[in-house]
Amino acid sequence: MRNIKMTIAYVGTRYAGWQVQPARPTIQGALETGLSRMLNEEVRIAGAGRTDSGVHAVGQVANFSTGRALPLDGLRRGLNACLPEDIRLVRAEEAVDGFHARSDARWKEYRFRMTRAEVVSPFDAPFVAPVRGALDVGAMGDAAALFAGSHDFTSFCPASCTLENRTRTVTLARLDEQGDEVVYTVRATGFLRHMIRTMVGTLVQVGQGLRPAADIARILEARDRRTAGPCAEARGLTLIKVAYEEAEA
Amino acid sequence: MRNIKMTIAYVGTRYAGWQVQPARPTIQGALETGLSRMLNEEVRIAGAGRTDSGVHAVGQVANFSTGRALPLDGLRRGLNACLPEDIRLVRAEEAVDGFHARSDARWKEYRFRMTRAEVVSPFDAPFVAPVRGALDVGAMGDAAALFAGSHDFTSFCPASCTLENRTRTVTLARLDEQGDEVVYTVRATGFLRHMIRTMVGTLVQVGQGLRPAADIARILEARDRRTAGPCAEARGLTLIKVAYEEAEA
Repeated sequence: MRNIKMTIAYVGTRYAGWQVQPARPTIQGALETGLSRMLNEEVRIAGAGRTDSGVHAVGQVANFSTGRALPLDGLRRGLNACLPEDIRLVRAEEAVDGFHARSDARWKEYRFRMTRAEVVSPFDAPFVAPVRGALDVGAMGDAAALFAGSHDFTSFCPASCTLENRTRTVTLARLDEQGDEVVYTVRATGFLRHMIRTMVGTLVQVGQGLRPAADIARILEARDRRTAGPCAEARGLTLIKVAYEEAEA
Repeated sequence: MRNIKMTIAYVGTRYAGWQVQPARPTIQGALETGLSRMLNEEVRIAGAGRTDSGVHAVGQVANFSTGRALPLDGLRRGLNACLPEDIRLVRAEEAVDGFHARSDARWKEYRFRMTRAEVVSPFDAPFVAPVRGALDVGAMGDAAALFAGSHDFTSFCPASCTLENRTRTVTLARLDEQGDEVVYTVRATGFLRHMIRTMVGTLVQVGQGLRPAADIARILEARDRRTAGPCAEARGLTLIKVAYEEAEA
């Protein structure tokens, strides 16, 4: 059996997220349907990040096994011909036996775009979350820096989360101002459900002066979802990159 | 009565073009519905360019008359709150009495984006037309230059066109290479229906080596639609700017 690693880009607007759900369009579903049709066998894929409805990706990674001999180039062309234009297979590679897109990921990087523009360009609207009022971006940067390191992120995921281990290691958490936009870039060994969007909702409260930057440490400490800010809009979020050990893929 | 000049941006993908049509979503229709609701009177607007289905705009201009005293700022905010996010009122200004967005336009500038990328980013797909094979961009630039000046553009509009005067003056016609993309920028006193897309379809044939650049002069001379190339995909086209005399608006 071959193990194929795929790098995938998509605009998440029309989809109910990555993960297959009955009777709703999903990214995973569209890819599995296309691959199964092309390869004439039932294909199941494993994705590195289970992005929510409305979240985008430029560098999602997934893998699947197949016995078919189809060349990688033909796979890419054929699958892209089957897929709707808002999902693209960017690259297909042979991976080593046992490579798994999710469990082998060393880190993932996401970016969240917010805009303070009075009129949001219709070309940007599906990809940025509007933020009202003035923002103290310096304070937001100070707050973001407090996410760096290993923390229990219980306060930043839904109370319904049943995972045992909610400790994740954030290796990069940075705010950049780009004209009307404020962009939050975050890299971690893994993320809990809604974790980045709840980080952003809390950072915006800091930017709006509703809480001090130092609150981040207190919220992490509390391990209680009610202490953090609201979950920011999905459309601002894009999965940028999933990184692996050189040898693994 | 006040005469209001509006600058409008839109993503044309979901619309059957600018001009109102029964039972189909149009840009003009969405704007007229929104304005009529806000101002509580029947509003009819005149647009500078009647863009086709799938064509976009960053600087469309339209005007309308109203007796209402609503401030321009309130108009902009209120209308944008009514409109879908793929249409935005960018700017509203008071225009002089008698100003008409179409008949007073000195020139309009459009841009057409083509891409040679093997995999078109899903973020760009609604805004660029894919072009197959290698392109001789130098030859395309030579061909484009032949559009400059005043010409009868009968060969570049549908045979069904009933306009008497099909002479238009092109003041800029340029090709630029930007990575995988080739961008055609064209500025003229006015355009016939499908004129730019037929120019592009013909320029692509030149780029593909299917005809020499000098053909453009022969096609213009022929005044026969059958002598030109095919009409390129609408999605590559964007209305960039409509220019007026300083004093007029």
